Amino acid sequence: MPLLVMKFGGTSVADLDRIKNAATKVQREVERGYDVIVIVSAMSGKTNELVGWVEQTSPLFDAREYDAVVSSGENVTAGLMALTLQELGVPARSWQGWQVPIHTTDAHSAARFTDIPRANLDQKFAEGFKVAVVAGFQGIGPDGRITTLGRGGSDTTAVAFAAAFEAERCDIYTDVDGIYTTDPRITSKARKLHKIAFEEMLELASLGAKVLQTRSVELAMRNKVRLRVLSSFEDTDENSGTLVCDEGEIMESKVVNGVAYSREEAKITLVTVEDRPGISASIFAPLADAGVNVDMIVQNISEKDYEDHLGSVTDMTFSVPINQVERAKKAMEESKAAGRIAYDELIVDTEVAKVSVVGIGMRSHTGVAARMFKALADENINIKVIATSEIKISVLIDRKYMELAVQALHDAFDLDEA
Amino acid sequence: MPLLVMKFGGTSVADLDRIKNAATKVQREVERGYDVIVIVSAMSGKTNELVGWVEQTSPLFDAREYDAVVSSGENVTAGLMALTLQELGVPARSWQGWQVPIHTTDAHSAARFTDIPRANLDQKFAEGFKVAVVAGFQGIGPDGRITTLGRGGSDTTAVAFAAAFEAERCDIYTDVDGIYTTDPRITSKARKLHKIAFEEMLELASLGAKVLQTRSVELAMRNKVRLRVLSSFEDTDENSGTLVCDEGEIMESKVVNGVAYSREEAKITLVTVEDRPGISASIFAPLADAGVNVDMIVQNISEKDYEDHLGSVTDMTFSVPINQVERAKKAMEESKAAGRIAYDELIVDTEVAKVSVVGIGMRSHTGVAARMFKALADENINIKVIATSEIKISVLIDRKYMELAVQALHDAFDLDEA
Repeated sequence: MPLLVMKFGGTSVADLDRIKNAATKVQREVERGYDVIVIVSAMSGKTNELVGWVEQTSPLFDAREYDAVVSSGENVTAGLMALTLQELGVPARSWQGWQVPIHTTDAHSAARFTDIPRANLDQKFAEGFKVAVVAGFQGIGPDGRITTLGRGGSDTTAVAFAAAFEAERCDIYTDVDGIYTTDPRITSKARKLHKIAFEEMLELASLGAKVLQTRSVELAMRNKVRLRVLSSFEDTDENSGTLVCDEGEIMESKVVNGVAYSREEAKITLVTVEDRPGISASIFAPLADAGVNVDMIVQNISEKDYEDHLGSVTDMTFSVPINQVERAKKAMEESKAAGRIAYDELIVDTEVAKVSVVGIGMRSHTGVAARMFKALADENINIKVIATSEIKISVLIDRKYMELAVQALHDAFDLDEA
Repeated sequence: MPLLVMKFGGTSVADLDRIKNAATKVQREVERGYDVIVIVSAMSGKTNELVGWVEQTSPLFDAREYDAVVSSGENVTAGLMALTLQELGVPARSWQGWQVPIHTTDAHSAARFTDIPRANLDQKFAEGFKVAVVAGFQGIGPDGRITTLGRGGSDTTAVAFAAAFEAERCDIYTDVDGIYTTDPRITSKARKLHKIAFEEMLELASLGAKVLQTRSVELAMRNKVRLRVLSSFEDTDENSGTLVCDEGEIMESKVVNGVAYSREEAKITLVTVEDRPGISASIFAPLADAGVNVDMIVQNISEKDYEDHLGSVTDMTFSVPINQVERAKKAMEESKAAGRIAYDELIVDTEVAKVSVVGIGMRSHTGVAARMFKALADENINIKVIATSEIKISVLIDRKYMELAVQALHDAFDLDEA
C-alpha cells in the first residue's frame, strides 16, 4: 500500500473545526488508496502557554521537565485528530512519541532522532488501520524520559517518518499555499513555484522564508524525501502547493528562482585591525564562544593602509542578527582589553538589510552577479557587503532600500514569468 | 527512610501560585525526613476542557483516545510541580503513568490497577531524589495504551501508591479542612472529626459527602492505608485534618459519628403487585439492566390486601437517583407490557430526600433507631422508607424537611460535643 505523510501545523489544528477540516484532507488521501501517517502540532497558542508556565515556574528550568510539560500539547491534538477521523469512518489511532517509539538523543529540548522503528505502526497498518496520528515534536531519550526537538520539530518529525516509512511524499499543510519567488507582501508580482530544489529551499529557509524549518529541509534532502508545502485552508489536489524535491526532478529551472531578504541584520566593522596570520580566528572564536551567529564576513584592505603604505593593517566587516549586536560588541571589547586583538575603532551599522538571489541554475550560468549588481545600481542602491555561495548571492544594503531592491531583482530575473 | 504520599486535587494546583503553595507543603515533609510521592490532578478546569473537546469531536468516543487526550492534564501539573520543587531546592522529578509504570486493566476510562512495580521509583529514591511527582488518574493497559481511572481517580492513585510503597500515611490535600459530623452549611454546629473509621467514611462517602471517592476509601481499607484529609489552603501540621483509619486506631468512638444526606432522591411505588416467589427479581432485574441504581427497597403489605383478604398482592417501594426516574419508569412499563410483571399503578414521588446516621458504635449499641425516629417525630417529620445496615440507618422523608432533620439528628446524638 502506498504511504503518505501529512503534517498539520498549529494554525491548521487551532480548534475543533480546523481539526475536522484537516481530517477531511486525510480522509481524501485514504479514499485515493493511501495509508497515511499524520503528524500534528499542538493547537496554536497551546505550546506558548505551556512554555510560559514552565518559564514562570523556573527561569533556569530542568529541560527534562520542560519536555514532559510541553509535549502534552501535541498529545491532545493527536487524540482529537484520531477521534475526528474515526467520526469520518476512517480507522485511525493516535501515537505518542514513546508508543511508536521515537528514539532520540538525550539533548532535551533540542533532541535529534536516533531511530524510528517501523514494527508497531506497520503492524497496525497490516491490521487494517488506515491512519496513524503521531504527536509531532517529541520522542524518548535513552533513559526513557520524554524529549522534544525544539521549535519547528513537527516538520522534522514528518520528514523523519517519511524517510523511515519510505513515504511517496511528505505533505506539509500550513497557512500559506506554497513557496513563492519572493514575499508577496513586498511585490504583487511574486509567483508561486510549482517545484523547488532542496538546496534552493535551504537557502531560502535560512534566509528568512519561514515556511519550512531548515532542519527539516536538510533531513529531507539527505533522505530524498519529496516534501510538499500546501495550504490547510484551501481546497487542494495533487497539483497544489510547492514540491520541494531533488533537482533531478526539476526539468527546466531558471537561473534564479527566488529573492530572499532579512531585515534583522546589523553590520559591524573593526577598523585598522593588525593584519597577521590567525587574526580571523582570534576575532571569530570569541564571537562563537559568545553565541553570536556571524553570517557574512568581508576583509578589506584598510584605508589607513593606503595612506601609510604599511601593508600590515586591515578592516574586518561582518554581519550579525541585530539582537546580537550588544553581545558581539562585548565579546570584541573584552578581547581587545585582554590584548588578544587590536583595532582602532568598532563601528556598528544597524540600518542594514540582506537581500539574496537563489537558484541552482547559477552553478552552470555566469553573469548572475553582474546582472544583480546592475539591477541594484540602476536603482542607485549602494552595496555594502557581498557574499556568495554556489547557488546564492547575498548583499548587505541600507535597510530603507530593501523593498525596492527585492522588487528590482524580482524584475531583473523575470521571476514573475513561469 | 519513612515515606509519605501526598495528593493535591485540581483546586490545590489550579495555578502556578497554588502549585507553589502545595510544593511548600511537600518541602516541609522532606525537611522532616520523609521521602515523598506526590500525586497530582490536572489544574482545575483543564480536565473539563479536554473532556469537552473529546465529546464535541465524537459523542460516542473511542475511550482509548479519550484517555490519551484527557490524561495530558495531569502530565502538565506533574512537570510543573517537579520544577517548582527543584526551585525550592528539593531534588524531584515527574513521572507519567507509563514511566512508573502503573499497570492497569484495559477498561479505558474506568481502569483498575493491576500492578505498580516499585523498582523505578525506589532506584531514584536510592540515588537521592527526595520526591517523585506522579501524574494521577492514569496508567497503561496491557496493550501499552494510556488508560484513565475515571473521575476521582487521583485519590485512588494516591492510595494505591501508599499501599505499594508501604507509606506511613496518605495525605489528601483538598479544599476542605477535614471530614465533618455533617455539612456545615446545614448546621453551624457541625464539628470536624479528628479520626473516622474506614467503614464510616465509606458510608458517608457513598451517601454524598463528596470529599473522598468511595473507591479510594475501599482501597485504603483493604490495604490498611491511613488516609488523611486536610486543607491545601491553610497552614497544616501533623494534627491537621481528619485521619481515616482502621477502627482499632480509634480509642473511644461515639455511637453515631455523622449525619449524611442526599437531596437527589426519588421514591417509586408499584401498587398492587402480585405477591409470588421471584417477584422481586422480576422487578429489579430489568432495572439493573437499564442501569438504574436502586438504593432503598421496601415491600409493604398492600392496602388492597387488607380490604380483600386475599393475601396475594403487595406494594413494592424503592428509591432511585432523581435523574434516573424516567429510565426506571420506562423499564417497569416495558416489563408490564411484556407481561413479565403486573401492577395496578406506578407512583413517583420526586419530593423526597434521604437522611442517614452513621457510626461504628451502632454495632455494640442498641436503641439508635428509636432515638433517631423519636428525634424526627418530635419535629413532626414523617418517615416514608427506612433502611438499615450494620453501621447506618437511613430514612426517606419529604425533601422540605431535610435540613430540619439533619439539624435535629445532629442535636439528638450530641455530635457537636467532642
